Amino acid sequence: MPTERFRRGAARLAEMGGDIDNIVAPLADVAPDLARLVGEFAFGDLYTRPGLDLPHRQLVTIAALVTLGDTERQLRFHIAAALEVGVTPRQVVETIIHLLAFAGNPRVFNAMLVARAVFAERDLLPLTDQPPVDPAG
Amino acid sequence: MPTERFRRGAARLAEMGGDIDNIVAPLADVAPDLARLVGEFAFGDLYTRPGLDLPHRQLVTIAALVTLGDTERQLRFHIAAALEVGVTPRQVVETIIHLLAFAGNPRVFNAMLVARAVFAERDLLPLTDQPPVDPAG
Amino acid sequence: MPTERFRRGAARLAEMGGDIDNIVAPLADVAPDLARLVGEFAFGDLYTRPGLDLPHRQLVTIAALVTLGDTERQLRFHIAAALEVGVTPRQVVETIIHLLAFAGNPRVFNAMLVARAVFAERDLLPLTDQPPVDPAG
Amino acid sequence: MPTERFRRGAARLAEMGGDIDNIVAPLADVAPDLARLVGEFAFGDLYTRPGLDLPHRQLVTIAALVTLGDTERQLRFHIAAALEVGVTPRQVVETIIHLLAFAGNPRVFNAMLVARAVFAERDLLPLTDQPPVDPAG
Amino acid sequence: MPTERFRRGAARLAEMGGDIDNIVAPLADVAPDLARLVGEFAFGDLYTRPGLDLPHRQLVTIAALVTLGDTERQLRFHIAAALEVGVTPRQVVETIIHLLAFAGNPRVFNAMLVARAVFAERDLLPLTDQPPVDPAG
Amino acid sequence: MPTERFRRGAARLAEMGGDIDNIVAPLADVAPDLARLVGEFAFGDLYTRPGLDLPHRQLVTIAALVTLGDTERQLRFHIAAALEVGVTPRQVVETIIHLLAFAGNPRVFNAMLVARAVFAERDLLPLTDQPPVDPAG
Repeated sequence: MPTERFRRGAARLAEMGGDIDNIVAPLADVAPDLARLVGEFAFGDLYTRPGLDLPHRQLVTIAALVTLGDTERQLRFHIAAALEVGVTPRQVVETIIHLLAFAGNPRVFNAMLVARAVFAERDLLPLTDQPPVDPAG
Repeated sequence: MPTERFRRGAARLAEMGGDIDNIVAPLADVAPDLARLVGEFAFGDLYTRPGLDLPHRQLVTIAALVTLGDTERQLRFHIAAALEVGVTPRQVVETIIHLLAFAGNPRVFNAMLVARAVFAERDLLPLTDQPPVDPAG
Repeated sequence: MPTERFRRGAARLAEMGGDIDNIVAPLADVAPDLARLVGEFAFGDLYTRPGLDLPHRQLVTIAALVTLGDTERQLRFHIAAALEVGVTPRQVVETIIHLLAFAGNPRVFNAMLVARAVFAERDLLPLTDQPPVDPAG
Repeated sequence: MPTERFRRGAARLAEMGGDIDNIVAPLADVAPDLARLVGEFAFGDLYTRPGLDLPHRQLVTIAALVTLGDTERQLRFHIAAALEVGVTPRQVVETIIHLLAFAGNPRVFNAMLVARAVFAERDLLPLTDQPPVDPAG
Repeated sequence: MPTERFRRGAARLAEMGGDIDNIVAPLADVAPDLARLVGEFAFGDLYTRPGLDLPHRQLVTIAALVTLGDTERQLRFHIAAALEVGVTPRQVVETIIHLLAFAGNPRVFNAMLVARAVFAERDLLPLTDQPPVDPAG
Repeated sequence: MPTERFRRGAARLAEMGGDIDNIVAPLADVAPDLARLVGEFAFGDLYTRPGLDLPHRQLVTIAALVTLGDTERQLRFHIAAALEVGVTPRQVVETIIHLLAFAGNPRVFNAMLVARAVFAERDLLPLTDQPPVDPAG
C-alpha cells in the first residue's frame, strides 16, 4: 500500500504534468524503494509545502539543475513541468541567462539547448515573448 | 569615466541594498577591471533585463549559490538583497529547504545557517511566518 | 508531537554519537521544519534501512562529503560518527587517501586535516595502526 | 618495460574484472603516459594498499563517482568491478539510495539507471534481495 | 545592429577558428540575447583583454572545462581553438594529464577522449611529439 | 628511505618555493603515506613531466583550483608558486578574470581575494602592470 505521503507526492507530480509511474516503472526491478522514497520525500513532503508556490519552486529547481550539471534528463522534465504550472517560456529563458553570472557559460548553454528542445516539442518556437534583438544585425 | 552599463549596474545594485563601492574598493589595487566587468555585465546587463523581476532573480540566485557551494560570502549578500527587494524570509527558507531534493543536506544546512545569520542581523528572528511545527514534540 | 520517523531518526543519530538537539536547536527560530525533515528522512528513513550496515554507510558518507567539498562541518561530524559505529581510524584514513584517484588532491588534503582534528580531540594520535612509512626518510 | 608498480596495478585491475589493455589501447596514439600513470598510481599504488579491502574500496569509489557527476563511463566499470569483488547488488543499490541525503536526487537517479544497466547485462534483474516494497501499492 | 563589443567578439572567435553564427543560429528562435551577451562579454570583453595571450587563455579554459565536468561540447570547441591559436597537441595532452592531481581521474579520462577525437578529425594521430613510452612494455 | 620519485618531487616543490616538510609534518601522525604519495605522484611524476613548463602548469593549476572551489589553502600556495616560477601578477589576475566566463562570479571573486592576499604579503600592491582603468570614474 502506498503511504499517504506517496499518494500526495504522486498527486503533486501529476499537477506538474508528470506521472509517478514514469519513476516507479524503470526502478521496479532494481530499486522500488528509491521510487517510493522520492515520491514520498521530494514530491510528497517538499513539493507540497506551503510558503513557496509551484512556479517559484520550478524556477528554483531549474537554477539548481543548471548549476549542478550533468542533469539533462532532470532539466528536460522540470522545464516542461515549469511550463505546466504556469511559468512562461520567457521566465525559463531569463532564469537560464541570469545564471551566466553564477554558473558559467557551459552550464548555461547546455541548459538552453535543453530548454529549446522542450519548447520545440510543444511547438512554442520561435518564442514570441522575447525582446526583438538580433545580435547578427 | 564609468560606462553607461556600469552606472546602470551600480544603480541596480543600490536597489538591492548593495553598494558598488564595496565591490570596487577591495579590488582597486589588484584588479579594478574585475569590478568594472562585474558591475557592467552581472549588474548592468543581466540584473536589469526585463522578463524576470528582482524577487525571482534573487530566488534563482540563492538556488544557484546553495548548489554551487563555497559561496558563504555571496549567499550572505544575496539573501540580504532578496529581503531588500521584497522576498519574504519564509520564501528564502522555503527555497533552501526545497533544495534538499537537488543539492543534498550539507549544502542546505550550510546555507540555512547563513540565512539565519542574515535574519539575526536584521532582528527578524524568530521567524513568525513559519508553520508552527515543533519537531522535538 | 514528533513523528515515528523522526523518533527513529533521533535514535539512529544517537547510536552514531550524535544528538538530534544539535540539529533542532540552531534551526528552532529559523527553520524548525528543516530539522524535522532531515531527522525524518536522512536519519529516520535512509540511515535505518537494512542492506548496508552503519560502518559501510559512514565510509560512503565520508566519500561523498570529501568529493562534494565545502563540507568541513559535516565531515567533522561524520568522521566522529564513523569511529562511534566501529570504523577504525585507519579505514577513515584509507578512504580519504583512496579518493586521490577520484576527487583530486585538494579535496583529500582538506578532508585529512579534518580527520586529524577529529582524531586529536579523541587522543587517537599518532595513529598506531598505520604502516611504518617515513616519507622524509 | 612496464614498471613493477604498473604490473601490480594491472594485476589488481584484473582481480576487479578489468583489463589494463582497455585503458592502454584507446590512449596508445594520444597519451600512452596517461595509461601508465593511472595504471601505476590509481591501481598500483592506491588500490593495492592494505587497510581497506576491495569491497570497501568499491563502495567508496561508487559514492565518489555518484557525487562527482558526469561519470557514467566510470560508474559502469566500477559497479561491475564491485560485483566482481564480492559486493552484492543490494549493497550497490543501498549505497546509491543513501546518497539521496548528500548528493541530491539527480545524481542518485542517473547512477541507479547505470546500476540497472550493469545488473541487466549480467542477468541479475529483478534483484531478489530487495525488500518487497511496492510503492504503487 | 550588433554592438562594437559583439563585432570585436565575433572577430576574436574567428581567430580561434570559430564562427559566431554557430552560436547565433541555434539560439535564434529561443534566446538570441544569450548569443549576443556571450559574444559581447566572453569573446568581446574577456577574450580580447591584453595581459594573457590566446594560447595561455586556451590552456586556462581547457583546465576549467576539464575540472567543471559535463562540458564535452565546450571541450571539443576549445581544444580545437587551442590548436588553432598555436597550442601544440602535446601541450593539450600535458594540461589534461596534469589535472590528475587536481580534478581526479574520471574528469581527465573523459577529457582525453574528447582531445583524441579532436586530434583524429584533424589527422594528428598518432601524436609524434609524445615521449616514446609504452606502458604495456 | 624516500624514493627517487619522492626526492624528485621534493626538489620540484622547492623550485616552486614550497617545502616538502610543510606537507610531511602535518600528516606525520595521521597519514604519512599521503605525504609520500603526493610527493611522489603530484610533484615527482606530474610536475616534472616535460611538455609543459612550470609557468604554464601554474596557470593551469590556478584555473582548476578556481573552478573546483573550496580550495583557498591550495590557491594561496599555488598563486605564490606561480610568482616564484616566473608568472607575473598580471597573468594571475588575467587568468582569474578570464574564468568569469567558465566558472561564474563567486569562484572568481573568492579567488581574486586570495590572490590579493598573496600579493599583499609580497608587497606587490598596487599592481602597477594593470591597465589604468577606474570603474568608479
